[in-house]
Amino acid sequence: MIKAGIIGGTGYTGVELLRLLHNHAQVEVIAISSRSEAGQLVGEFFPSLAGQTDLAFTAPDDAVLDECDVIFFATPHGVAMETAGSFINKGIKVIDLGPDFRLRDKDEYAQWYGLENFQDDLLASSVYGLSEINREQIKEAQLIGNPGCFPTTVLLALKPLIEKNLIDLSNIVVDSKTGVSGAGRGANQAMLLCEASESVKAYGVSGHRHYPEIKQELSLLAGGKPIGLTFIPHLVPMIRGMESTIYVDLLDANVDVQLILEAAYKDEHFVTVLGAGIVPETRNVKSSNFCQIAAQKTVGGKLVVTAVIDNLIKGAAGQAIQNMNIMFDIDEGLGLEQIGLLP
Amino acid sequence: MIKAGIIGGTGYTGVELLRLLHNHAQVEVIAISSRSEAGQLVGEFFPSLAGQTDLAFTAPDDAVLDECDVIFFATPHGVAMETAGSFINKGIKVIDLGPDFRLRDKDEYAQWYGLENFQDDLLASSVYGLSEINREQIKEAQLIGNPGCFPTTVLLALKPLIEKNLIDLSNIVVDSKTGVSGAGRGANQAMLLCEASESVKAYGVSGHRHYPEIKQELSLLAGGKPIGLTFIPHLVPMIRGMESTIYVDLLDANVDVQLILEAAYKDEHFVTVLGAGIVPETRNVKSSNFCQIAAQKTVGGKLVVTAVIDNLIKGAAGQAIQNMNIMFDIDEGLGLEQIGLLP
Amino acid sequence: MIKAGIIGGTGYTGVELLRLLHNHAQVEVIAISSRSEAGQLVGEFFPSLAGQTDLAFTAPDDAVLDECDVIFFATPHGVAMETAGSFINKGIKVIDLGPDFRLRDKDEYAQWYGLENFQDDLLASSVYGLSEINREQIKEAQLIGNPGCFPTTVLLALKPLIEKNLIDLSNIVVDSKTGVSGAGRGANQAMLLCEASESVKAYGVSGHRHYPEIKQELSLLAGGKPIGLTFIPHLVPMIRGMESTIYVDLLDANVDVQLILEAAYKDEHFVTVLGAGIVPETRNVKSSNFCQIAAQKTVGGKLVVTAVIDNLIKGAAGQAIQNMNIMFDIDEGLGLEQIGLLP
Amino acid sequence: MIKAGIIGGTGYTGVELLRLLHNHAQVEVIAISSRSEAGQLVGEFFPSLAGQTDLAFTAPDDAVLDECDVIFFATPHGVAMETAGSFINKGIKVIDLGPDFRLRDKDEYAQWYGLENFQDDLLASSVYGLSEINREQIKEAQLIGNPGCFPTTVLLALKPLIEKNLIDLSNIVVDSKTGVSGAGRGANQAMLLCEASESVKAYGVSGHRHYPEIKQELSLLAGGKPIGLTFIPHLVPMIRGMESTIYVDLLDANVDVQLILEAAYKDEHFVTVLGAGIVPETRNVKSSNFCQIAAQKTVGGKLVVTAVIDNLIKGAAGQAIQNMNIMFDIDEGLGLEQIGLLP
Repeated sequence: MIKAGIIGGTGYTGVELLRLLHNHAQVEVIAISSRSEAGQLVGEFFPSLAGQTDLAFTAPDDAVLDECDVIFFATPHGVAMETAGSFINKGIKVIDLGPDFRLRDKDEYAQWYGLENFQDDLLASSVYGLSEINREQIKEAQLIGNPGCFPTTVLLALKPLIEKNLIDLSNIVVDSKTGVSGAGRGANQAMLLCEASESVKAYGVSGHRHYPEIKQELSLLAGGKPIGLTFIPHLVPMIRGMESTIYVDLLDANVDVQLILEAAYKDEHFVTVLGAGIVPETRNVKSSNFCQIAAQKTVGGKLVVTAVIDNLIKGAAGQAIQNMNIMFDIDEGLGLEQIGLLP
Repeated sequence: MIKAGIIGGTGYTGVELLRLLHNHAQVEVIAISSRSEAGQLVGEFFPSLAGQTDLAFTAPDDAVLDECDVIFFATPHGVAMETAGSFINKGIKVIDLGPDFRLRDKDEYAQWYGLENFQDDLLASSVYGLSEINREQIKEAQLIGNPGCFPTTVLLALKPLIEKNLIDLSNIVVDSKTGVSGAGRGANQAMLLCEASESVKAYGVSGHRHYPEIKQELSLLAGGKPIGLTFIPHLVPMIRGMESTIYVDLLDANVDVQLILEAAYKDEHFVTVLGAGIVPETRNVKSSNFCQIAAQKTVGGKLVVTAVIDNLIKGAAGQAIQNMNIMFDIDEGLGLEQIGLLP
Repeated sequence: MIKAGIIGGTGYTGVELLRLLHNHAQVEVIAISSRSEAGQLVGEFFPSLAGQTDLAFTAPDDAVLDECDVIFFATPHGVAMETAGSFINKGIKVIDLGPDFRLRDKDEYAQWYGLENFQDDLLASSVYGLSEINREQIKEAQLIGNPGCFPTTVLLALKPLIEKNLIDLSNIVVDSKTGVSGAGRGANQAMLLCEASESVKAYGVSGHRHYPEIKQELSLLAGGKPIGLTFIPHLVPMIRGMESTIYVDLLDANVDVQLILEAAYKDEHFVTVLGAGIVPETRNVKSSNFCQIAAQKTVGGKLVVTAVIDNLIKGAAGQAIQNMNIMFDIDEGLGLEQIGLLP
Repeated sequence: MIKAGIIGGTGYTGVELLRLLHNHAQVEVIAISSRSEAGQLVGEFFPSLAGQTDLAFTAPDDAVLDECDVIFFATPHGVAMETAGSFINKGIKVIDLGPDFRLRDKDEYAQWYGLENFQDDLLASSVYGLSEINREQIKEAQLIGNPGCFPTTVLLALKPLIEKNLIDLSNIVVDSKTGVSGAGRGANQAMLLCEASESVKAYGVSGHRHYPEIKQELSLLAGGKPIGLTFIPHLVPMIRGMESTIYVDLLDANVDVQLILEAAYKDEHFVTVLGAGIVPETRNVKSSNFCQIAAQKTVGGKLVVTAVIDNLIKGAAGQAIQNMNIMFDIDEGLGLEQIGLLP
């Protein structure tokens, strides 16, 4: 059994890691930390786990964490940067669900997160954990920067098209929609049911933190070429789910995009290319680790690629577990077999 | 592997059976029928299953169903009554998620369902499949009448109190609330998002079909004594989830109800008695087979017992699988290990 | 024009008063106070009012409030008790949407609100503002204790039956359901969309602050007889709306309740008795000041009365304006003409 | 009093016309027709109107319609084309909320609606009723083609920018989100709460009927220049509300868009340009006739303009009434004074 620990377990990614690992045949969660809830029984804090676990929250510096084979950081930016190194030094694998090990350019990190990333060596050794893109490096990695949710949708949607040099890189427009769980569990007036329900709005219009991450990774897919990107996320009144509608110009209008997408993902368990004319709906991947993708030419001439995920699973906890499975060389789908909860 | 078939698989209980059995280690679904969709690929009909199954819907009289070890009827009333016998005669076990084998009194059935139950022998041989109440008979049964969703909440909530003769049987008031998935997948104006969202209403006020079922089973728990029952269900704007608030008068105001409930369910995996003062919320059992129960004395003197389930799981498909596991003498929790999807 | 002021205008009842009075032909809101937002433009704080008002929040002690003809307190308990008197002394009418002038018994107030009500004279002079019950006293009142939302549903539903002595007063069960707007605009984890959506739960099971208020007023309707009451509110995932399902025993099973309700309310503009067999839905009164009521005998023998209101209108701001109209002897429906927003 | 009639009153635009006109000081609805519900009382069909109206549905050919001063068609495409002429010939003004008099090019109409528009003369005499754009022609018109909901958002958002020649017309991307009420009241499986809630999806990706309408009107604003347009609508889980996020390239990056928008709409009551940095949310215009607009330059270089409306009001019934007010030379805001219902 792989012994796993979770740092910062009181948020939605924390409880999602607990939920998924609960059914993972080869993992036992032996520790979950919370500065504020140390000592509290997990099954009382999260009543969905009532009667299903004896775990209690520990302090983040509890020695039990050192007994882990893998540590998941489900923490805000800045935390993993501070303490991941100590686990790495003890030979423990680390998967950071926060952003500390995603951006390669320290200036970009400082600009978008208002914090200096002083862990040059850790950053250099870390791997961007988009499983379907960097599987080989993930196998060898000890430290994973787990991708943001929006980047996951965009990268999976565009990877085959960019790698085959099919689209104009200078004019990519990404319009994303997400449920409110991405905003976390903290008390926040704007996320009250009364404020967020029955409404839609754009946010982060002047610039969202996932913008540089998407741009960096698209550019890597394009062999380092520059990317002209516009990215606007929107908040929609639902708990889970994320959709990105991506507007691109095909360099050759006659290319069969359906065929290319299907070929690219035919061996990927967690990426499903839908049949021609079928449009992804977030509900079809709710509670699952799947990403569903479709592409269609529009009457105006552009190609529109749409992708959906469950933001807390393929966009966070699920992809983290997928990366863990890869790192430990076990079946990549373990603990992630569940299909979408419909309805 | 147990070979399973589903009759009437295009509704919400059908797809829920598919979803849960997909992860059941000892079951393979070899057939799913639909009169209207015969020939259609299941993964196209339910996009949550896209790429995850090769099954296609068969006609309800397809011979493949005879190869099954167990057949689930996910059909409206009247269907199982017609065709369950032919499977029973071939030695196939049958679990009817509809109401045909729930009511012992044929006159009651005729009165509430507008149909005569002519299957006297089948009815006599069938077992009411509330796993925690009738486990021993279920082990031996070949035909199960799987309980209704509302009755499941009420029976689990009141069983310990009635068996210990603690409450006034003449004045039980049950006020239940359910998400709209119980109304099914059929196109139905009243269940449009625009009609059912942002609203609450009582329904079935003059009489709901689960009324005689609850009354019959409560009376059985009470050793045949008559029950004075009032039951009003309400539709609330959510997809899944069911809560029953049950108002009863304690015969002895000093009894420790908390202790009695905890003792009654300490060995039941799927029934969780919450700590004193904690109130069940349907979201804590969403996507799981658990029933959470609490009881509290109120300022007005009555005892209030509340119970929550996922209406499509412990209230339908999950309990059916739990019964199947009991019938086949395998681990009762197989395929049902998932904890609640939170948030 | 009646000059109106609002104390504590940043919450949901505050903005609802603004919205309704905006269309009131004989009222001008000249002041709205907020301790925390003093100086802030109302049209920036509430973007629904962007461009529609020049008002800015004032401090609660701003002299402009003394120019008002009427002051609405949209404040938590304890605030109106402190400062209502100073307005009363200046001849300004006061309507308190909080609970300070609802409970006649100071011990009850202290017990339920944890605070002593030291304003004996004010309390003695105040009128409980359920417009349809106390219209004559409201006409003469200078100080109104505006009813709670739950009590409004129960009192309107039972008034005709109690006044005609038709029901057993010793065993009244009220099961209420409310949208989350009643919990207010404060940042509150439990009211996040992610926590409150797709779920139902009871709350205040051991005792809710509206319990003594309902009991007091029912007893008054019954000529002072004692009331055996059980009251459990439930939170349902919607913004606005409140439904109460009330279970009572008729003293004479043959009485025509429909006729009695219709006769009782035939001249009341804001109370609609629905036709026999029609069930009230909260959506039909959303955004309106109406209360819709229905009664039906159930198969179990009890009479079930259901009533729906918009909790922020007939349950708060709308009833306050209705009371103001009565106090100023103008058309009782002014500013409240809007019918329900459907869908 | 203006006597108004509604053809096809059983849908959401029908009841919205009834609701708004109920509070219009100078209009009386004297007739509302429905082929299927003729004879039925409106207050029974729409319980939000219970007790508030004596109207009953008439047949669409009832003579009472000839007594009207204005007729609203709230019907599917093809209906107004058939019968509007007969009212026009009697001197009755007609406002078609359907699409029959929107597209100037009969081939486009035939292509997108699968029907030939044979009413050349009517079409030629009709005015496209976007009040803020064509106010002068609307004053003189007898027949109005009331705009589609999506076009309303896009045209109001881009009008000032196009008229001042500020943007690249060849590359306009419109990503719109709408609540489900636009899909109507018909029983429709895809619009069930269980199917449409907790999900987001694009639709009409290959081409939506509002595409040619948007393109036609943008081109008119641009003095006939061609428009390169991409338009993808999305369904989000809410009842009302519509947001369009519009991606354009500024020809001159230094232009002060905020100033230009504010100047353009300073005298328009129903169009509110939000302060710099404030993002429109659909909930702020819910139940109102307002359109709120904002523009912001993004980190990627594009200008993003966002606009929100209530799709059933400014996107349908409200704009129709605004047009009626203009046609009858009365205060343009009559009956439309209500501000947004918050929360």
